[in-house]
Amino acid sequence: MSNVVSVNEQVIERAKKIRVILMDVDGVMSDGKIVYDSNGVEIKHFDAHDGLGIKLAKLAGLKTGVISARESETIRKRAAELGMDFLYLGSFKKLDAFHKLQKKLNLPPENFCFIGDDLPDIPVLREVGLAIAVGNATEMTRNNVHYTTRNSGGSGAVREAIELILDAQEIRLPAIEKLWKEG
Amino acid sequence: MSNVVSVNEQVIERAKKIRVILMDVDGVMSDGKIVYDSNGVEIKHFDAHDGLGIKLAKLAGLKTGVISARESETIRKRAAELGMDFLYLGSFKKLDAFHKLQKKLNLPPENFCFIGDDLPDIPVLREVGLAIAVGNATEMTRNNVHYTTRNSGGSGAVREAIELILDAQEIRLPAIEKLWKEG
Amino acid sequence: MSNVVSVNEQVIERAKKIRVILMDVDGVMSDGKIVYDSNGVEIKHFDAHDGLGIKLAKLAGLKTGVISARESETIRKRAAELGMDFLYLGSFKKLDAFHKLQKKLNLPPENFCFIGDDLPDIPVLREVGLAIAVGNATEMTRNNVHYTTRNSGGSGAVREAIELILDAQEIRLPAIEKLWKEG
Amino acid sequence: MSNVVSVNEQVIERAKKIRVILMDVDGVMSDGKIVYDSNGVEIKHFDAHDGLGIKLAKLAGLKTGVISARESETIRKRAAELGMDFLYLGSFKKLDAFHKLQKKLNLPPENFCFIGDDLPDIPVLREVGLAIAVGNATEMTRNNVHYTTRNSGGSGAVREAIELILDAQEIRLPAIEKLWKEG
Repeated sequence: MSNVVSVNEQVIERAKKIRVILMDVDGVMSDGKIVYDSNGVEIKHFDAHDGLGIKLAKLAGLKTGVISARESETIRKRAAELGMDFLYLGSFKKLDAFHKLQKKLNLPPENFCFIGDDLPDIPVLREVGLAIAVGNATEMTRNNVHYTTRNSGGSGAVREAIELILDAQEIRLPAIEKLWKEG
Repeated sequence: MSNVVSVNEQVIERAKKIRVILMDVDGVMSDGKIVYDSNGVEIKHFDAHDGLGIKLAKLAGLKTGVISARESETIRKRAAELGMDFLYLGSFKKLDAFHKLQKKLNLPPENFCFIGDDLPDIPVLREVGLAIAVGNATEMTRNNVHYTTRNSGGSGAVREAIELILDAQEIRLPAIEKLWKEG
Repeated sequence: MSNVVSVNEQVIERAKKIRVILMDVDGVMSDGKIVYDSNGVEIKHFDAHDGLGIKLAKLAGLKTGVISARESETIRKRAAELGMDFLYLGSFKKLDAFHKLQKKLNLPPENFCFIGDDLPDIPVLREVGLAIAVGNATEMTRNNVHYTTRNSGGSGAVREAIELILDAQEIRLPAIEKLWKEG
Repeated sequence: MSNVVSVNEQVIERAKKIRVILMDVDGVMSDGKIVYDSNGVEIKHFDAHDGLGIKLAKLAGLKTGVISARESETIRKRAAELGMDFLYLGSFKKLDAFHKLQKKLNLPPENFCFIGDDLPDIPVLREVGLAIAVGNATEMTRNNVHYTTRNSGGSGAVREAIELILDAQEIRLPAIEKLWKEG
């Protein structure tokens, strides 16, 4: 668990309680580029390493979900492919979405992690048990989290956050064994 | 206002007077890549952080617009989505576009900021109150501006320029509060 | 053969025995980005330098193939264009695919090289004669290989691995001469 | 002419004689990524700064052209848009294309510059008056040129090569003035 060595004790304590990992899309699951073609089609870039992280979280028994201000077919497709559990799209009022989910699951804030990169994420980051910013998050975002990843959004930040949580709970290796067995 | 510390006083004085923020597209709002597919469709990459900066400028009461030598459906879509106010496309004679807008708004040059990256931007950069080059602008462009951003075009340069202006006018935090309230 | 100087002797000995070079796709032949558009079309980025490396391997008399957990039309097209010999797509159980190919070719593990970047590649990396990780492979992957490339996946890692093998076997220059003659 | 200071005298002497600037496409005018979508459509990324360089060369009275092993609609579109003069696509035997053009124009090799990045470019690079490699060209390519650009292919290398030639011939500023006047 070499990663965890550089993470301070308070973050590890917070990570131990996480049961649901939520994240923003643009700049977190994607590289933050808004890509259009001249026919109005939208394109989004996700990361294979992040995707495998989300699968590992599932194999380890954690829930995952996205809260995004943008509505997009690409994120619906990606979330379905990865078997993500919750999908809140289309509103800048992310805190409302978070409260709705919290009520639905009947879990306290300390069971939630949220990974964000910019201003609309801050109200949720201020409430959850473990607030994580991607490495290239804006300054104000980084000032409102418990941990900032070394990797950038859309480029391994989600994987890094998930491994931190799985390592804190000592459930990473069993999840990897499952991955190899079940394929 | 930690950003502003490293910005010299003259730039801050110029930023205080800005009411309209204009910008080039390719290499400024986008990453400067001209992308085609084999069916002739054009694709453009914008930046989510930049987009939120343009929204913040609007919430703070500033006007925004683009002056681009290229005509492109993608920039029309992106500008509409962000609620940008002015759109001048399709001519290398950017100075003509600037003069037309200046006349229309009846504002002196010191109320305008222009963000550019290459030769066709220089005539406008030489006239506006606050001339800004993106971090990866060509050398001659950087020699014709008051300030060069640390971030590259299509990767946070527009956000950085806008925050500099909002901070100089001390209107960033109220705009952020509005963003959180109005969603 | 300046590259080989920095490669340790054991790796060169292993490289001398390789007759089949196998590789993962996402993060190895591609940059690891999973790209969708809003119509459900998938896009993949390959590397021209890597492609020429695969052609060189072919001209040098080696066989090449891919083992990928994802099914994708883009990899079928790219593999056909490069004249790759083996194509195993659509299963996380990469070891099964490797064993099937090994049986078909009736070759011992020391004749195979596999290039990988993440967890599903590790079972195969542990069996082949020469296990190579791309420069940006995950930590656990890098801990299970004989050699890690300086270049990242989708950005020259495959070319670097192939040149290492061709140089160890002293067959790079003849392959280049063939390329220039046959076009 | 600050760029030229770091360029050695022999390169400047060679650059003074150039009348035709030829270049490879993948890895030189583009970033070297071969991009497909799942419908078989190909996508290519060009650079706006490079494009303006090609326009400057034209305004300065030089001819430009491409010699590429790949056939692609995207390069036809880009070359037409930039008003490039010569287009040789679809063969790895680039030297044949170069000889054909040389005969057609009836000019000696010292009037030609070629910009390349990989093995198929080397036979032409060995013949032209000014051979240039992009910053991220393969090692063998860099060993066969008079000058290697600081910028990478698809990211300013072509612009840098063209400015070097225009500066050596002292025709850059007049071309820029024309650009501003004619738009």
